[in-house]
Amino acid sequence: MELSLFNIMDILGTIAFAISGALSAMNRRLDIFGIFIIAFVTAIGGGTIRDVLIGNTPVSWMENIVYVYLIGVVTIFAIVFRNKLNYLKKSLFLFDTIGLGVFTITGVEVGIQNGLDPIISVALGAMTGTFGGVIRDILCNEIPVIFRKEIYATACLIGALAYIILYKLEVDADIIYLVTSLTVISIRLIVVKYHLTLPSFYPVQPKSSERRM
Amino acid sequence: MELSLFNIMDILGTIAFAISGALSAMNRRLDIFGIFIIAFVTAIGGGTIRDVLIGNTPVSWMENIVYVYLIGVVTIFAIVFRNKLNYLKKSLFLFDTIGLGVFTITGVEVGIQNGLDPIISVALGAMTGTFGGVIRDILCNEIPVIFRKEIYATACLIGALAYIILYKLEVDADIIYLVTSLTVISIRLIVVKYHLTLPSFYPVQPKSSERRM
Amino acid sequence: MELSLFNIMDILGTIAFAISGALSAMNRRLDIFGIFIIAFVTAIGGGTIRDVLIGNTPVSWMENIVYVYLIGVVTIFAIVFRNKLNYLKKSLFLFDTIGLGVFTITGVEVGIQNGLDPIISVALGAMTGTFGGVIRDILCNEIPVIFRKEIYATACLIGALAYIILYKLEVDADIIYLVTSLTVISIRLIVVKYHLTLPSFYPVQPKSSERRM
Repeated sequence: MELSLFNIMDILGTIAFAISGALSAMNRRLDIFGIFIIAFVTAIGGGTIRDVLIGNTPVSWMENIVYVYLIGVVTIFAIVFRNKLNYLKKSLFLFDTIGLGVFTITGVEVGIQNGLDPIISVALGAMTGTFGGVIRDILCNEIPVIFRKEIYATACLIGALAYIILYKLEVDADIIYLVTSLTVISIRLIVVKYHLTLPSFYPVQPKSSERRM
Repeated sequence: MELSLFNIMDILGTIAFAISGALSAMNRRLDIFGIFIIAFVTAIGGGTIRDVLIGNTPVSWMENIVYVYLIGVVTIFAIVFRNKLNYLKKSLFLFDTIGLGVFTITGVEVGIQNGLDPIISVALGAMTGTFGGVIRDILCNEIPVIFRKEIYATACLIGALAYIILYKLEVDADIIYLVTSLTVISIRLIVVKYHLTLPSFYPVQPKSSERRM
Repeated sequence: MELSLFNIMDILGTIAFAISGALSAMNRRLDIFGIFIIAFVTAIGGGTIRDVLIGNTPVSWMENIVYVYLIGVVTIFAIVFRNKLNYLKKSLFLFDTIGLGVFTITGVEVGIQNGLDPIISVALGAMTGTFGGVIRDILCNEIPVIFRKEIYATACLIGALAYIILYKLEVDADIIYLVTSLTVISIRLIVVKYHLTLPSFYPVQPKSSERRM
């Protein structure tokens, strides 16, 4: 594997995702095995669901073993420095955001390579970026956080859309990568800085006798 | 896509399933992104799991894009009219029941087309009909409702069984469709009208020291 | 299907897993349909996820129908004798442990047959042994028990490792089966007898204003 800028970003993203999974697992007081599993699924879950849905099997991480080792090492790091990770908060947030951008790109690309409809490719991009976190939350028995703080996913969606538009305009691949990841990253940074949220729509409760449909 | 009666029923079912997902998400106060995702997985989740298990990938909705648009439009409708949906309760219940019947049929059919054992085809029919709701409930962090109010699934199972029997008897396809969907629909209507439930079996609790196996 | 020792162990394991699923479902007061589904996914869930991830579809139980019938019969047994199962606690624990050993072996084997990296084969072994229980717990809305009492999974991991090492040493298949299953079984028996647990790592909570990363 040659280390292009894209690969380096992919690695940083994987590291951040694995650490966020490990932290989540430690906060739920899972034991060491649980910590590894949750770190692992957070980092590779989005790509795995994408691969399964399009039939790209064995799924990617089974054939690109270096990520398995990377996640293992990162998880050990997260366990050892669990009380120090706070000092890395800003770096981790940045890596996480980079990961989101990169994973979105790989998802869209896989969709295009498989000749799928642009809207499906956008969905695959958002899925690759966010579904690792969804599985993490399901395994930790929580409502997935992206369904409550969704700007996260919205950043992916808009980035993926940018990718598709540039791709249709036959822009050079490097520029597509750059614009897509910058789109995802800057939306996320702005959203977090200004505490933006998307609206939710809570229906007025009917009288309880009428409540079940 | 030509609009046969079967297609129309399939569309009505998809609409009802998407609305039930959107309502569920709004009741859990998810944001707009969460509402779309839950509506989507409720409508296509059953067929997706079926496709993944039998290896029919990319899964159906990736290649039949019209459903993606349909669910998007329906979800916007559900959000806008969230406080009025109560007036549509009866129509939605009917659509939902129709969807159950139609989805059961498509599941059984896929099983037969793939040369699987009849009992597996029946399972695929029930799965296609009910697992969208199962994923909806898992994502919303609830015990899946079909495991507690299971006549829903039982209707699918009996309908799917009817399908297989008629198929073995080499009955005409249109008649199979009709009988299967009417079976599912009428079981469900009767069950809801007379508040029928299946038994549950709660074991007598052993003394707590013995409780873990 | 000829009944080798391996098949008999596989059947005992399936029986124990199905019963553990049925018990779990009855304890959550699910109805009869839910009981069957949970028994079923507990028994075949691990192998199903393994098959889906490597692209071995239709998944095994769809083509080896005898397991579907076996699980059905076992579940009926579990329901009828739900208040007597306590007397079988020791046998069930033994069967469950045997199942863990056998399922680990089948998982590793599938990995090797598909030419996957040894570490991936080990992961597939552990997955096949434990993920049925993970899905059971997710469907019952609990944090998967293996993430909290993980020696269970660790037994699989060490057994799978033993398998791979012996395989690389070109040891005879029967001996590999024997050693692997004895490894898994004896680790589990020792762990339960001496109440061993693996450590968990709960990070010191930062002040709440700093808590979200």
